[in-house]
Amino acid sequence: MPVLSKPLSKPLAVTGFRVGSASCGVKSADLKGKRQDLTLIVADVPAQAAAVFTQNTFRAACVDLGEQTVRKHATNIRAIVANAGNANAGVGEMERVWSQQLIDLGAQAAGVAASQVLSASTGVIGEPFPIERIASTIHQAAESLAEDNWVQAAEAIRTTDTFAKFASRQFEQNGKTYTITGVSKGSGMIHPNMATMLGFIATDAPISAEKLQAILSPIADRSFNSISVDGDTSTNDTVYLLSSGLGLGDTELNDTSDFEQALQDVAIELAQLIVRDGEGVTKFVTIEVTGAENETQARTLGRTIAVSPLVKTAFAGSDANWGRILMAIGNSDAPIQPDKVSLRADDVLILEHGNLHPDYKDEMGMKVFSQQEFTLFVDIGLGDASAKVWTGDLTHEYIEINAEYRT
Amino acid sequence: MPVLSKPLSKPLAVTGFRVGSASCGVKSADLKGKRQDLTLIVADVPAQAAAVFTQNTFRAACVDLGEQTVRKHATNIRAIVANAGNANAGVGEMERVWSQQLIDLGAQAAGVAASQVLSASTGVIGEPFPIERIASTIHQAAESLAEDNWVQAAEAIRTTDTFAKFASRQFEQNGKTYTITGVSKGSGMIHPNMATMLGFIATDAPISAEKLQAILSPIADRSFNSISVDGDTSTNDTVYLLSSGLGLGDTELNDTSDFEQALQDVAIELAQLIVRDGEGVTKFVTIEVTGAENETQARTLGRTIAVSPLVKTAFAGSDANWGRILMAIGNSDAPIQPDKVSLRADDVLILEHGNLHPDYKDEMGMKVFSQQEFTLFVDIGLGDASAKVWTGDLTHEYIEINAEYRT
Repeated sequence: MPVLSKPLSKPLAVTGFRVGSASCGVKSADLKGKRQDLTLIVADVPAQAAAVFTQNTFRAACVDLGEQTVRKHATNIRAIVANAGNANAGVGEMERVWSQQLIDLGAQAAGVAASQVLSASTGVIGEPFPIERIASTIHQAAESLAEDNWVQAAEAIRTTDTFAKFASRQFEQNGKTYTITGVSKGSGMIHPNMATMLGFIATDAPISAEKLQAILSPIADRSFNSISVDGDTSTNDTVYLLSSGLGLGDTELNDTSDFEQALQDVAIELAQLIVRDGEGVTKFVTIEVTGAENETQARTLGRTIAVSPLVKTAFAGSDANWGRILMAIGNSDAPIQPDKVSLRADDVLILEHGNLHPDYKDEMGMKVFSQQEFTLFVDIGLGDASAKVWTGDLTHEYIEINAEYRT
Repeated sequence: MPVLSKPLSKPLAVTGFRVGSASCGVKSADLKGKRQDLTLIVADVPAQAAAVFTQNTFRAACVDLGEQTVRKHATNIRAIVANAGNANAGVGEMERVWSQQLIDLGAQAAGVAASQVLSASTGVIGEPFPIERIASTIHQAAESLAEDNWVQAAEAIRTTDTFAKFASRQFEQNGKTYTITGVSKGSGMIHPNMATMLGFIATDAPISAEKLQAILSPIADRSFNSISVDGDTSTNDTVYLLSSGLGLGDTELNDTSDFEQALQDVAIELAQLIVRDGEGVTKFVTIEVTGAENETQARTLGRTIAVSPLVKTAFAGSDANWGRILMAIGNSDAPIQPDKVSLRADDVLILEHGNLHPDYKDEMGMKVFSQQEFTLFVDIGLGDASAKVWTGDLTHEYIEINAEYRT
């Protein structure tokens, strides 16, 4: 059961983009026609593009090819083709061949050049990639292309996600309304063979590829890189951001601050949905670190707390075990001075400047920790920088899902 | 159920050391007389001392005091006093006072000066330290001092350890037989509030404090720092090494190679016992990394694999999920070149130079992973350095133990 209090709002169409999906039976032939597993996002005009990729050194060929294409052709991208069910990773020399074939098929289906196509794959690692099943079915995705098809796009990149993930924002500038819509997939914890996190975001806001990249990188750090996925990154993690605005003939935005805010909101919402759908997750916890010397230090500290199995099991047990949180803080690289550290859970002050608050009682902490959602505030008293990180708890169900055989 | 195929051999007495224990009811007064929770190790002569401590920045006062004492008085140590049941950590300003009081009580009981006493505490974090219960009972430990009492010493530092941990080795040099005996406590995974790892090792081999320290540090890296304790270090982790040899009038060993080998064997055995007793652990896995540029790189890579929840749950499920292992390798800091990486499980070659071995079949890997003990060999093909790391699996029982309330 995901930690989700209400259904997601329908994603908004983005001018200049059409989206389609197909059911190719990527994972196994008998799923063909039963489950959407191929997404095609087509820009009707040359789109500006930006991307962030996994830091894992074992990265899949699709990541290498995507990075090359963004580097060379960031001002002229026409499509994203993505499949679920097979990561096309860890399969040796054929990996790059299959990855290029997927791009070629996407280009053909979208009616654009291969150099204009970005790809992504997610699913099982180490299995031969069923390129022929995609070749015979991708036409369905082209046939279903439509502006308001974003839910299907989100559906078709799911692996073990229990729900499709999407988010939209709009902002007004120069008398026009611009839209940002994104889809994501991934798990709050780790999926057996498909830990991959994907995010595809489209906008009609007219911004050059160069600026998009400068905007996307820090926002990815504050969103997709600020959720706990067990501290591991996968071989295929990818976020693509495309803008149709300039291709549609609009004038470039000089002031991008509204766009940045809206994009950050979309990215954080997409990232949070991944935590909320984490395997076995029953709690959604925000960790807000303040008083750091810089944002990276704050984020790293937040992540150290967020990935600690000892902290995550305390969440699962509704146990306000602040000793474990201190231990996790002490394990970060930050130059912690214990007598400067304060800790609060929602509005309950636990630790003040390294000392247990005299009014604090275990029951007060337990009450906060027993909620489905709460925030831990950690102040380390070294500076003015802050960061937020989101994580879930570590439960029986997680073990159940992940200790199973792959079959 | 710990992963232990046979009972431990009785630890050997070490000339110049006597050991005693007491039941103080440190954790709660009603445990007094029911469970040993205070250990006193007394050197009959001034002992040479070396130590390694936790790298956690939230370190307990006993660690600060121990480090100071070893720095100032490493050639004249007479006792170690250690308690289980309360870590005397995270309790603010009284921590240092209580820690010094424990040292004073140990000195009094052993009939030596406080400057000659090292202390260690393990147990619950953030609870007031019951110094008065120790004060009224520590005389029992002094009264029970005996050369062959090492099992009791190991018993009395247990927290949630399911068995007492000890190991001995002897070596001959210059016509004499020297003995090394050590005790340890800790969990292969994390204990609710007492993740602390302690190790106390005594020897009659005549070696100066300075040499002991130079020998202990790298050996601690190859033993206590090469086991998976969830990637977290605690506030109180401590290893003390004492030698009575010079105090007993023996001549210093010029060649310490036999001593180093024997000490490393003892330290590795004590460290492995911690993994074997890990919470919920049903498998004991050795990860041997070869082909690294240096030993630290090899160890760091081994640890990255060893702490990954995704790898640990694969172990639990007897799932030879090599994709997860690759992912963990790719998450290390090592400059991995995928086409140089080979992976073997016991004698089954899975991956050779980045490609799945043509003869490999899932069943072969599953057979290895379904054993209670096995070894993963990871070669990264960058150099000649190697390291071994030991870890367990991540099971339901772990969650059960750690998600419980502290009460």
